[in-house]
Amino acid sequence: MVSEVVEAEGHLIDSQILNAMFDTVVRHDAAFEVLTFRIGRTNDEPSFVSMRVTSKTPPALTEVLEELVTLGCSVASVEDAHVVHADRDGCAPDDFYSTTNHQTFVRQAGQWIPVERQRMDAVIVLDGGKATCRKLREIRAGDPIVQGLRGIKIVPEFQPRDRLGFAFMSNEISSERRVEVGVARIAAMMRETRQKGEKIAVVAGPVVVHTGGGSYFSDLVRHGYVNVLLAGNALAVHDVEQALFGTSLGVDLETGKAIEGGHRHHMRAINAIFRAGGLEAAVEQGVLTSGVMYECIRAGVPYVLAGSIRDDGPLPDTVMNLIEAQDCYAELLRDVKLVLVLSSMLHGIGVGNMLPAWVRLVCVDINPAVVTKLADRGSSQTIGIVTDVGLFLRQLASALS
Amino acid sequence: MVSEVVEAEGHLIDSQILNAMFDTVVRHDAAFEVLTFRIGRTNDEPSFVSMRVTSKTPPALTEVLEELVTLGCSVASVEDAHVVHADRDGCAPDDFYSTTNHQTFVRQAGQWIPVERQRMDAVIVLDGGKATCRKLREIRAGDPIVQGLRGIKIVPEFQPRDRLGFAFMSNEISSERRVEVGVARIAAMMRETRQKGEKIAVVAGPVVVHTGGGSYFSDLVRHGYVNVLLAGNALAVHDVEQALFGTSLGVDLETGKAIEGGHRHHMRAINAIFRAGGLEAAVEQGVLTSGVMYECIRAGVPYVLAGSIRDDGPLPDTVMNLIEAQDCYAELLRDVKLVLVLSSMLHGIGVGNMLPAWVRLVCVDINPAVVTKLADRGSSQTIGIVTDVGLFLRQLASALS
Amino acid sequence: MVSEVVEAEGHLIDSQILNAMFDTVVRHDAAFEVLTFRIGRTNDEPSFVSMRVTSKTPPALTEVLEELVTLGCSVASVEDAHVVHADRDGCAPDDFYSTTNHQTFVRQAGQWIPVERQRMDAVIVLDGGKATCRKLREIRAGDPIVQGLRGIKIVPEFQPRDRLGFAFMSNEISSERRVEVGVARIAAMMRETRQKGEKIAVVAGPVVVHTGGGSYFSDLVRHGYVNVLLAGNALAVHDVEQALFGTSLGVDLETGKAIEGGHRHHMRAINAIFRAGGLEAAVEQGVLTSGVMYECIRAGVPYVLAGSIRDDGPLPDTVMNLIEAQDCYAELLRDVKLVLVLSSMLHGIGVGNMLPAWVRLVCVDINPAVVTKLADRGSSQTIGIVTDVGLFLRQLASALS
Amino acid sequence: MVSEVVEAEGHLIDSQILNAMFDTVVRHDAAFEVLTFRIGRTNDEPSFVSMRVTSKTPPALTEVLEELVTLGCSVASVEDAHVVHADRDGCAPDDFYSTTNHQTFVRQAGQWIPVERQRMDAVIVLDGGKATCRKLREIRAGDPIVQGLRGIKIVPEFQPRDRLGFAFMSNEISSERRVEVGVARIAAMMRETRQKGEKIAVVAGPVVVHTGGGSYFSDLVRHGYVNVLLAGNALAVHDVEQALFGTSLGVDLETGKAIEGGHRHHMRAINAIFRAGGLEAAVEQGVLTSGVMYECIRAGVPYVLAGSIRDDGPLPDTVMNLIEAQDCYAELLRDVKLVLVLSSMLHGIGVGNMLPAWVRLVCVDINPAVVTKLADRGSSQTIGIVTDVGLFLRQLASALS
Repeated sequence: MVSEVVEAEGHLIDSQILNAMFDTVVRHDAAFEVLTFRIGRTNDEPSFVSMRVTSKTPPALTEVLEELVTLGCSVASVEDAHVVHADRDGCAPDDFYSTTNHQTFVRQAGQWIPVERQRMDAVIVLDGGKATCRKLREIRAGDPIVQGLRGIKIVPEFQPRDRLGFAFMSNEISSERRVEVGVARIAAMMRETRQKGEKIAVVAGPVVVHTGGGSYFSDLVRHGYVNVLLAGNALAVHDVEQALFGTSLGVDLETGKAIEGGHRHHMRAINAIFRAGGLEAAVEQGVLTSGVMYECIRAGVPYVLAGSIRDDGPLPDTVMNLIEAQDCYAELLRDVKLVLVLSSMLHGIGVGNMLPAWVRLVCVDINPAVVTKLADRGSSQTIGIVTDVGLFLRQLASALS
Repeated sequence: MVSEVVEAEGHLIDSQILNAMFDTVVRHDAAFEVLTFRIGRTNDEPSFVSMRVTSKTPPALTEVLEELVTLGCSVASVEDAHVVHADRDGCAPDDFYSTTNHQTFVRQAGQWIPVERQRMDAVIVLDGGKATCRKLREIRAGDPIVQGLRGIKIVPEFQPRDRLGFAFMSNEISSERRVEVGVARIAAMMRETRQKGEKIAVVAGPVVVHTGGGSYFSDLVRHGYVNVLLAGNALAVHDVEQALFGTSLGVDLETGKAIEGGHRHHMRAINAIFRAGGLEAAVEQGVLTSGVMYECIRAGVPYVLAGSIRDDGPLPDTVMNLIEAQDCYAELLRDVKLVLVLSSMLHGIGVGNMLPAWVRLVCVDINPAVVTKLADRGSSQTIGIVTDVGLFLRQLASALS
Repeated sequence: MVSEVVEAEGHLIDSQILNAMFDTVVRHDAAFEVLTFRIGRTNDEPSFVSMRVTSKTPPALTEVLEELVTLGCSVASVEDAHVVHADRDGCAPDDFYSTTNHQTFVRQAGQWIPVERQRMDAVIVLDGGKATCRKLREIRAGDPIVQGLRGIKIVPEFQPRDRLGFAFMSNEISSERRVEVGVARIAAMMRETRQKGEKIAVVAGPVVVHTGGGSYFSDLVRHGYVNVLLAGNALAVHDVEQALFGTSLGVDLETGKAIEGGHRHHMRAINAIFRAGGLEAAVEQGVLTSGVMYECIRAGVPYVLAGSIRDDGPLPDTVMNLIEAQDCYAELLRDVKLVLVLSSMLHGIGVGNMLPAWVRLVCVDINPAVVTKLADRGSSQTIGIVTDVGLFLRQLASALS
Repeated sequence: MVSEVVEAEGHLIDSQILNAMFDTVVRHDAAFEVLTFRIGRTNDEPSFVSMRVTSKTPPALTEVLEELVTLGCSVASVEDAHVVHADRDGCAPDDFYSTTNHQTFVRQAGQWIPVERQRMDAVIVLDGGKATCRKLREIRAGDPIVQGLRGIKIVPEFQPRDRLGFAFMSNEISSERRVEVGVARIAAMMRETRQKGEKIAVVAGPVVVHTGGGSYFSDLVRHGYVNVLLAGNALAVHDVEQALFGTSLGVDLETGKAIEGGHRHHMRAINAIFRAGGLEAAVEQGVLTSGVMYECIRAGVPYVLAGSIRDDGPLPDTVMNLIEAQDCYAELLRDVKLVLVLSSMLHGIGVGNMLPAWVRLVCVDINPAVVTKLADRGSSQTIGIVTDVGLFLRQLASALS
């Protein structure tokens, strides 16, 4: 039998961390003994726990501790983090520490250093007194990589119980809710974010256009509520098709009438942009004079269109090298404080993977399974709304104007 | 080998009846030979087909013919319908003719008599020169019941290609549509129906209230767009809960905040109505002063609340004897020309079963599977919209005011 | 400012009760101060909390306390429960105590009396030293009804962390799970339940038959794994249609071929049972010789078919008075320890409303929204599985034979 | 008023082409007059129609004709196809002919030349008596591109009414079907395809692994039923995670237990493959000894892993340049006759875009909306099955062994 003492401090009960800690220990066939517990006497005071965890074997103990650290526990017998130098490009040492999206600190020379560029599924490079998240593929031979669990501390977000906009619908994702309430909260968050001079990113799928949300989305751009647009080729193609022909995949957005073989407009839209030399060129040449892409280009809103296996065309603007696309996404997301994901599971998950847990994420989709999946980031800063995205954008644009 | 000649006339190609006829024959391992075919030369002209159907055995031939008659074919060698007298209450003769929801004629004494109270899954009682649909359970011993297929003719609806409101989205049910277009069409239909002095029925589930659609629905009632309300106990209870406490199953509709054990309001709402002696009494006594039920009672809109196994309470107004509830529903649906089904699979299917195929049915639900199921009535007069019913009602009320 | 001290004891952290308590207080704009907190030092030890809750007004305090009691808190200054006599049939006093589905105790003459027939949304009648749940509609004038919150104590279930079958998939309902694992657990639970001589109830919708699960369900009946069957008219009609014609709503279950107007078989099945005089009579007369209903009748498994507004027929066996149907359901559920809900939202919710929280409930449906809704009983004894119910039953029958 | 005579021949009624033709004309506010119509007298005989279409303006007429050609009509006054030389790379002339996925012929020098590499959304390059589909981006300046509609003839697939496996469930996608019937048909198709020496491709998402289908999929590979595997990075990573750690995204596939922060295994699996130098190297070095990828590598089944914006890692084998990935997919799909898409909307749509309409496509997903979307290719050769893919694969593997 081997054991180790771990400690945690914070809103352990509210954030259900204490419960998760106990669960984790029991699930691993280990045992816990609470040594000290101080409960916050009021809503504002943090709690503190120290407990001894006992397992049958050292590897088993390591397994439990790995999970406990993820939850915000730290090993009581503090040591510096252990660092191993990568032996080759793109490879981490076998038991590298794999990051979560929560704020993390690494101990070096007795100091707790905050990790920069926090994201999940990264390694931590600890170099020159600086700790940074790095993707596996960005590792270079010789990089000092943090290994194991010693000297790692995570501080999960705590969801203040009454914080604007995130107190509602946190527990449940359901189509049986009043979306107008959600719209009002999101509008308030967007206004607040803009007033603080912070950035809002929107991740949008082509359904935004199909469902008639394009013009409302354009309003948001015009009114300065979109600082970054992250999407795929399809959003831009459908948007251009609507701007040039009034249809979306051949469906007339004014009358709802479908055209047999409606892909013709789609392909001609692509060809027109190709001929112009890209979206910006098409705006300059007066080929493209309305729509979401037009408004973004006019307003100087930076955008990235990431390619995918199902793309038609693609447009010259679409980044078909996905390594590059991921890097461009991550770059534009750098200082973003609020992200809206509108009917885009693929790009929404991509973005979710890149964000630290404290960036607020709002997911809107008519399919509850998509909302559940996107909202499932182990973060309290995510809300999901199951609704019709076209009508949602109409409401949102009207609430913000 | 036995064979029979069948004929059909009408918009056989548009309504895909000709195709269905061929399919039916082949599926039954039978063969067809087209004897005559005259195609309508323009959109307005009907087509005519007569074809010989050949099967291996008489029972096999009967099986094919049964389906062909359902599709609108009639046996060329016309005879009067065959009638058998029921030998006991509630029972039809073994091979009774089971109706569809399409307009049906029965031949008696060489005359084609239109069937009254057309609905699906009924028998036809042919008595005193009058033909009427009757449910199995309403059969009385001695009733003359139509048996077999001779002397039966069905005239399926034909969907005129440009008819207001039903030309769009007929082929496909999808959440990726612009609902604003659908709302405009439905509003036009409702206005037109009201102008003609025809009746509109609304079938509504409690999600109407949960999603904040209650006040918009109330607007529709106030403006005279609801002539009949068919619902269950839950719609009324949630509506009353909102009227009395501002919550729906404990969720505050203004703030979105949920109350632990929110059923308390729900139960108190039921108790309050019980104490008053029912909904009408509660309105009279000033206990109930707002909401959908209040508006219906004030406007004299007849309603039926049908009970179900999951009902709380129920309210004194809820009809818990389902035979009676079905009869009340059917009675109120008698002259209705347009039905809106809002987030109510159970009551929506119930209503769908009762309607002749020519009554227009609009189904709105956020779950595409529900819309598909409700819209699947073998009728061209049904449209389905996949969207958020709360936002839908907001749009609809605004389009109609 | 008014305040009150409340206490709770048990697995407060594991069951997230402590968190819910704090949330409740803050949501109501009240404040809490923890007076005492003793944490269970190991997994087996309970915790204890006492805290002072402060609100601005007495009614506001009552609102908070109402919710806290629901969570398992009791007011520290113990008094006997307050009882008011009902002034008329079917009506409770205005601030009657509305029950949860958790084990409840009522204090009378200084004694804590356990409440019998525990279910949610009931009143407690406290008579002759006995406390019993009663539905609003069952109240008779003069009944002594518990009012307010004094002298009420709730003991929520605690989910032991490693208990057979309920440790898995508790947090999340997803279609992206390995159903084979779930089947093995459920099979183990069913075997264990049968070995203990405890009862298993199955609530089944007609989709069980459509998806080809009928014969596997019949196996379960034959092998003694079904002690009670609760369903609607549709299950029985589809089952009989399959037994008599090999089809389900006209779709041949062996070949998958559909019959146009497939309702004919459906209606003839109903007529055949009508003619026989009911299901049991049909079995006795040799009319019905296979299927789920046949096996239940042969094995003496009691069943209730509850009517609904969408029923065809109905069969003579279907209970169309829903007050009676609810009572029959509740009666058969009396000693049941495990309930399987198979593709039946309507009857599943009905059953969920009747059960105390400690009865284990397994919900299986291909629609995640249905599973979420059914599993949402505020009980740790519920698991949901998103899968194809036909294939699920095949696996389950094979795991149990 | 301008008019043009068009003709079509084939199974015009069965395939609903005649109906679609009439609809198209009316939708465009044009008129038709049937000049000749000859109906196939039996199921085997084709029909023939010639009709005059009249529009108000020449551009309006062109619009109608464009759609009619898509449906299989050809302009009666036959001319050679019109060819324009591309003026620059990646750009087609403005009114280029955009292909469908149906078999197409182009008329040159009075001869009808079949188009090779048929796919949708391409241009036709007509060069040296050879006609070939080419994507917009593959156009090179000077390429002779077919423009307009003259000299184009499409022959849509006809669905023979009793063809193995595709007669069932063609009209409707529903979760309320007996999947066992579908499995038997698909197994028969796979066997038949293999016996003929034709190729089967499988497009698979990671849900195949999550739901426990991995080992059954491996069986299919081992038994030679998979000739091509098209997937994304995630399938391979989850498969490797299961092979190395027994988990899938941290969920133990034997016990269903989840690991907090289960991404650690995921990232270590990626690192292990990186270290080995790729999947094949990992197999050679004995690092990877089981799973879908292992079986494919051992059996020499060619595979392509296409990258996406949400990829972790990616594995060295994943093609992150999506132009290249699309080309690799298309290359492997060249002679494939049957495609199974298993829980992969993204890659499934990608593949669907590349296939000619006559390749049979089977889509399996638990989400009906995904199945509907994938099956919507305007092709009669597609079937969709709504079920649990893990249990489906179990059934399929057992049916094929």
